[in-house]
Amino acid sequence: MVEGNGTRSPHRVVIVGGGFGGLYAAKGLGRAPVEVTLVDKRNFHLFQPLLYQVATGTLSPADISSPLRGILNRFKNIQVLMDEVIDLDPAAQTIILPGREIPYDSLIVATGVSHHYFGNDHWQPTAPGLKTVEDALEMRRRIFMAFEAAEKEPDPEKRRAWLTFVIVGGGPTGVELAGAIAELAFNTLKHDFRNIDTAETQILLLEGLDRILPPYLPELSAKAAAALQRLGITVQTQSMVTDIANDIVTYKRNGQMEAIAAKTILWAAGVKASAMGQVLANRTHASLDRSGRVIVEPDLSIAHHPNIFVIGDLAHFAHQGDKPLPGVAPVAVQEGEYVARLIKKRLQGESLPPFTYVDAGSLAVIGQNAAVVDLGFIRLTGAIAWLAWVFVHIYYLIEFDNKLIVMLQWGWNYFTRNRGARLITGESSLSQDVQNTCDNYQAPAGMGSPVKV
Amino acid sequence: MVEGNGTRSPHRVVIVGGGFGGLYAAKGLGRAPVEVTLVDKRNFHLFQPLLYQVATGTLSPADISSPLRGILNRFKNIQVLMDEVIDLDPAAQTIILPGREIPYDSLIVATGVSHHYFGNDHWQPTAPGLKTVEDALEMRRRIFMAFEAAEKEPDPEKRRAWLTFVIVGGGPTGVELAGAIAELAFNTLKHDFRNIDTAETQILLLEGLDRILPPYLPELSAKAAAALQRLGITVQTQSMVTDIANDIVTYKRNGQMEAIAAKTILWAAGVKASAMGQVLANRTHASLDRSGRVIVEPDLSIAHHPNIFVIGDLAHFAHQGDKPLPGVAPVAVQEGEYVARLIKKRLQGESLPPFTYVDAGSLAVIGQNAAVVDLGFIRLTGAIAWLAWVFVHIYYLIEFDNKLIVMLQWGWNYFTRNRGARLITGESSLSQDVQNTCDNYQAPAGMGSPVKV
Repeated sequence: MVEGNGTRSPHRVVIVGGGFGGLYAAKGLGRAPVEVTLVDKRNFHLFQPLLYQVATGTLSPADISSPLRGILNRFKNIQVLMDEVIDLDPAAQTIILPGREIPYDSLIVATGVSHHYFGNDHWQPTAPGLKTVEDALEMRRRIFMAFEAAEKEPDPEKRRAWLTFVIVGGGPTGVELAGAIAELAFNTLKHDFRNIDTAETQILLLEGLDRILPPYLPELSAKAAAALQRLGITVQTQSMVTDIANDIVTYKRNGQMEAIAAKTILWAAGVKASAMGQVLANRTHASLDRSGRVIVEPDLSIAHHPNIFVIGDLAHFAHQGDKPLPGVAPVAVQEGEYVARLIKKRLQGESLPPFTYVDAGSLAVIGQNAAVVDLGFIRLTGAIAWLAWVFVHIYYLIEFDNKLIVMLQWGWNYFTRNRGARLITGESSLSQDVQNTCDNYQAPAGMGSPVKV
Repeated sequence: MVEGNGTRSPHRVVIVGGGFGGLYAAKGLGRAPVEVTLVDKRNFHLFQPLLYQVATGTLSPADISSPLRGILNRFKNIQVLMDEVIDLDPAAQTIILPGREIPYDSLIVATGVSHHYFGNDHWQPTAPGLKTVEDALEMRRRIFMAFEAAEKEPDPEKRRAWLTFVIVGGGPTGVELAGAIAELAFNTLKHDFRNIDTAETQILLLEGLDRILPPYLPELSAKAAAALQRLGITVQTQSMVTDIANDIVTYKRNGQMEAIAAKTILWAAGVKASAMGQVLANRTHASLDRSGRVIVEPDLSIAHHPNIFVIGDLAHFAHQGDKPLPGVAPVAVQEGEYVARLIKKRLQGESLPPFTYVDAGSLAVIGQNAAVVDLGFIRLTGAIAWLAWVFVHIYYLIEFDNKLIVMLQWGWNYFTRNRGARLITGESSLSQDVQNTCDNYQAPAGMGSPVKV
């Protein structure tokens, strides 16, 4: 942009989203001859791969979150805004937020995905997913509340329903959740209750395809399934959930209808693009795939708009191999770094070859001692895989104090089988049943008027 | 209780409340020839003295909380129930909960206090207090949101109101909060913003009496006030809040009416007894003081009911010195331990002398380097007082992993001036203004229908 007096104002980069993609793009542009504005609805970067550990009481949200300002404040050319983008004007080259517009020369959209209930959004309140801190805290509340409720429940059938957990989705999130709940039920909480035996807990993992961890090699899927079963989890593949209502999960397995009574149902099954995907489709020529993700060019820009990029989980990049790149953290990181390099190159009048992803491998952990790791040139299972998983996750955590705290929590957890964050918090910490009973309490005859405590 | 076949069923102790009083009473009865049931609305014990550190982003809730079951599970004679007591039947010797009654031979009520708004309960949504984890998280949200909102605010007057914090109440909680917010504004967040200079933050501490920390010696109050002023806090004594409305705090100071525009108002001013106090007054001959606390006998029981005890913040114990014992943690701990010893003695047909509190001293911290400590035989201020404060708080933290985590967070915070938990979380993480604007957004003419992101 050349202004009236002939000076060129600096190249403005706007980044929407402070997850792995947006954050690494920003870091790549720190100290570059650009002005960067990073916009996010939250004030922190969240390490999503460890959210299931917040949900099962091992870690606190702050242990896996880093304030965006704290990470970026050393780059004087980067400004952070806590706000929400609601529209886009590609002709004027501005993004639109409530009460303001921000102009850009390059735009990087990295707003990720949320849950997908396959057209059954009404299941969401009953079967929460795991994408945000609030999701994880709600899951935590329900998991620990289930044991508390079972402890107080005189009816054996209801008690069994409280001690039954159904996890929908056999990808890494579902697998890791199942393993962590098994550790809780069969280890951590073993001595905590007097009326129930947590060893009677039933954990059911439902996967629609023919094996869990479908992106992995079949033999690794099989090893993972065996590890889960050794942990006491029931794994059922080729099982598609057809209904969730009245504390009963109904699913179709190999053509047969089955049902199970479960008070706690956790959703780890599908992703749906964030709404910025639709904004881009409406305002530009961008096309979306079936999940709403934006189809991108080999340099991660969108068709006919070389200065608008989409990276991370929201991007559908199908120029490498026979499948689009998966929605995992290392892909987002590399895409963010690539776009930053590309923008800098363009400022010098140059360009870069198309983006290529260097696959560092896949990891999923099962409980405290086992994992499956596929690094391409080597595959690991068991304890050594678990160690690799631990180190990779510590490596990717932003902020040194997070690395320290998480290592400490994991060390503590490993040696004492004690989880440090087993809190039930939130507005209605007692179950709705109890709350209703309190509200409707009638004192026994002869005791005078009841007093609400 | 002697049952039909001549065997004596064990003495049943019911403890209501798992704070300092109830928890230490339970621990005192572990392995005694009694059956203990501890009832609490939450599943964890909360270390309230450090809640202000959760509110200002240094610690996470789990760092200062310990699951009750985890602490007590090694005592096979103690059962924990997560539930709420709604009434009492002293004739039948039962407590009443939703859907159940629990019989007792000895009852210990330790349900504490909550906030007191001096008849202005409608101030509560605007001026949150600090008694529970949810309180602290809400305070945290508002404090950090204020800086984010100021960063985006073009109007200088509104920006100043966002950067103005009013803390009502000059006791230890208010003093510690004020010091922590000053550290945030003038240190931690110094480099995080581009449109605002956090050094312009104004922090006002309002106290109704003639000096802050009224229970302390006057010279310690004076030193604390001087330390706060050095940190950049404005301390105004003899200031009683008369109204909080439309982001303006109106107060009467030395007879003059004054007002200040402030978007963030934090309440640390008064306590009101929990509702169990009223239940006891209704169902027994117990009397209440002006704050609703239960007046107790020299052995902490209530008049005419030697087997019903009230301990902790809910108890008004006026048999030592010329004032009732303060609502602080060491008092609750000693009272809980005393009642446990007394119950055990009675089982042997013996008794104990009346309760006497051994005053270990008072401590309040101001910022990162100063504190006031009064141990009776010695008074400390400055850095050495701060060290004493640190060690005492670590000592009283339950669970070794909490001690370790908190020492780590404090060490990290001290050396890096970085606070590890500066998250804005909660259902509506954006301010209500922004939310309303999103909902009412109209696309500029010519752009087609707006898309809600």
